[in-house]
Amino acid sequence: MTADAALTQDAKPDQAQGTTDDLGATGDLDEQVAALGRRAKAAAAVLAQAPDEQKNRALRAAAEAIRADGEAILAANARDLEAARARGMAGALLDRLELTPARLEAMAAGLEQIAALPDPVGRTLAEWQRPNGLTIARVAVPLGVIGIIYESRPNVTADAGGLCLKAGNAAILRGGSESFHSSGAILACLQRGLAEAGLPRDAIQRPETTDRAAVGHLLRLHESVDVIVPRGGRGLIERVMAESRVPVLAHLDGLCHTYLHAGADPAKARAIAVNAKLRRVGICGATETLLVDRAVAADLLPPILDDLAAGGCELRGDAAVQALDPRVVPATEADWDTEYLAPILSVKTVEGLDEALAHIARHGSHHTDCIVTEDEAAAERFLAEVDSAIVLHNASTQFADGGEFGMGAEIGIATGRLHARGPVGAEQLTSYKYRVRGSGQTRP
Amino acid sequence: MTADAALTQDAKPDQAQGTTDDLGATGDLDEQVAALGRRAKAAAAVLAQAPDEQKNRALRAAAEAIRADGEAILAANARDLEAARARGMAGALLDRLELTPARLEAMAAGLEQIAALPDPVGRTLAEWQRPNGLTIARVAVPLGVIGIIYESRPNVTADAGGLCLKAGNAAILRGGSESFHSSGAILACLQRGLAEAGLPRDAIQRPETTDRAAVGHLLRLHESVDVIVPRGGRGLIERVMAESRVPVLAHLDGLCHTYLHAGADPAKARAIAVNAKLRRVGICGATETLLVDRAVAADLLPPILDDLAAGGCELRGDAAVQALDPRVVPATEADWDTEYLAPILSVKTVEGLDEALAHIARHGSHHTDCIVTEDEAAAERFLAEVDSAIVLHNASTQFADGGEFGMGAEIGIATGRLHARGPVGAEQLTSYKYRVRGSGQTRP
Repeated sequence: MTADAALTQDAKPDQAQGTTDDLGATGDLDEQVAALGRRAKAAAAVLAQAPDEQKNRALRAAAEAIRADGEAILAANARDLEAARARGMAGALLDRLELTPARLEAMAAGLEQIAALPDPVGRTLAEWQRPNGLTIARVAVPLGVIGIIYESRPNVTADAGGLCLKAGNAAILRGGSESFHSSGAILACLQRGLAEAGLPRDAIQRPETTDRAAVGHLLRLHESVDVIVPRGGRGLIERVMAESRVPVLAHLDGLCHTYLHAGADPAKARAIAVNAKLRRVGICGATETLLVDRAVAADLLPPILDDLAAGGCELRGDAAVQALDPRVVPATEADWDTEYLAPILSVKTVEGLDEALAHIARHGSHHTDCIVTEDEAAAERFLAEVDSAIVLHNASTQFADGGEFGMGAEIGIATGRLHARGPVGAEQLTSYKYRVRGSGQTRP
Repeated sequence: MTADAALTQDAKPDQAQGTTDDLGATGDLDEQVAALGRRAKAAAAVLAQAPDEQKNRALRAAAEAIRADGEAILAANARDLEAARARGMAGALLDRLELTPARLEAMAAGLEQIAALPDPVGRTLAEWQRPNGLTIARVAVPLGVIGIIYESRPNVTADAGGLCLKAGNAAILRGGSESFHSSGAILACLQRGLAEAGLPRDAIQRPETTDRAAVGHLLRLHESVDVIVPRGGRGLIERVMAESRVPVLAHLDGLCHTYLHAGADPAKARAIAVNAKLRRVGICGATETLLVDRAVAADLLPPILDDLAAGGCELRGDAAVQALDPRVVPATEADWDTEYLAPILSVKTVEGLDEALAHIARHGSHHTDCIVTEDEAAAERFLAEVDSAIVLHNASTQFADGGEFGMGAEIGIATGRLHARGPVGAEQLTSYKYRVRGSGQTRP
């Protein structure tokens, strides 16, 4: 979903901050977060009844506010950048934190795109009549209150807040402390948009603190928060999944495979394998392991390995792959379990479809996996048997993205099996209820 | 969903047993339950690919096995009954535990009905094409491994095991210790059915112990169990919800309301109110509080209160209701928050729709609520604004049931907002995956 993961894994900026262990302060914070939850719940009840046009008005007004407040947001961002530099932050991490006029405009345009999406609330998901005359309709309703926990990219404030609002949900945003001022300035724009549309400002809120303990409180708020969506590196997701008393929509790993079957078209195999690995190496849909049928490895691999090496990709392979190309270094067992999120690819030859399926079942992360083949039967078996949120035939794993799926926007990708699997867009941020219409029926 | 709740609330038979606090034994048990989880996960992978006909063959063979083994099951049940009587169990609790030839036949027929349901797995839930030619399909797949924790009714073993199997899921069953032998005999029939159909016996299993600590282990098994469904009294559900590290599908309370609006048809109001309360008082869809518009209370209530009193229902009301009928005793504030699951009804007059909505929002349990009215606008507002899994217009709240909804069978009713809300049938025991078909597409 984002290129953040590799970066944040070692950085863990929140931890550098230290936590407030003073019990009094934690007690206050607990109450502050609990109050946030109660206000969010009240706002969610209003939002659940808000017509689409009113929510869209808020989204468009927020976009306008971001444009109008550009200078103030950039000034807030400058404060964050200065503090980050003083703490020694540099390179890609600092780049992620930085806002520019172009990034502000992208944020505003993103909110307008969310406004243009169809209303996910109120859809009739199913409707039927019973022999006794009762009409039963399953109708989409908002999920309720959504907690978003993310790291340093301040634009998540607008993206996540906007998507929650579109689906009629209240959002509690908890961004990384290093983007505290930037996110605050963006949040103010979202709240102005809400107010201008006559919706409660409490529909999008955040704890007004950089204290890490706020995350823990939020994760225990199961009475008012319906779901937690963490966005960021593995350390963050792992902590959220381990600690949360609220259901979590997320993925821990994106260890994606591309499997070149004996029946693969060589040109498609080359284009897909190279794109799946190198288009962007830091996203969760990037391929980490390439599997190749032994019988065709010598035919298929050389041009692919050439392209990858030319693209700056380190190649790690089993003995058969090493024999094909001197640039290939030996892969260890650990490689098959590693999500590099970097220009490194592990390459393994397999005897055929069965071994490929077994390898993916053992080492995969149930995220996204692809088979390249012209053999329809092999493709159907792969699509049926690989137990991942997204399975592809003859297409790059880098398509694992809500936007590419046509969902308009996504708040993340989930690999759990409950509620939403794969890209989590506006539709996936809804629940449903049953509306039963009768004419006086009683149960015998 | 069941009539058990009222009964088990005070009984808590498991607690009477004592627990094994010896650390060594608990360690062994931990490993026993973990091994159960691993075997279930392996079986789930097989089940996920099993064609509908094979699953149905297993269900029908299990039904036959229950019929063939009737005597052995009744003998096992006699052991449980004897032990229960020795511990002083009597009345309704003992009745729930007891199996009879008729109850065995109902269990077998239930499995055959589940076999006759349409296959919930493999349904194409949505399908669309992208401008780049990719075809994306959202396809139903099994949830995986389902843990069912229930109390003394041994028939849940067959019902829950059968429904999980139909949806391609492996089940880990943990029934009440007082039905240990009965459930074991039924489980043996299910496993024989599986084996006869060529499916793994591990698809339906249980920990072979009455040690209560097994429940705790099961609730921590998030690596192999995908969802927990608890069935039973409030004490059980509360414990499961508080302790579980695995997502839970359940409802804690069924505090259902029937609201007689000023525009109610008196005959419908009478029939619905009486049925909603008294048809069965121990099920979660039974109405616990009757709300009546003040303006029509004197017209509508007298015949309803007559019927209820004649049906043996205790009536508790506010001053206005007491003024209408000397049999009505004063309701206290606690009454509006009490799920009686007994022949008791609290009755409250309200100023109109707004006060009714506010009362339900404050005191309801998001389970099932009904409005009786001929005023379509009032009905639509009620259906839209009451935030419950099931909202009804002019029909008894006792229709809150998977069977009555036409789902064939249900494993329970959920009031959470994630994944499944309302009756949890075979369809709700599935997840989905995306199958993406391309022709060599790469992401630009």
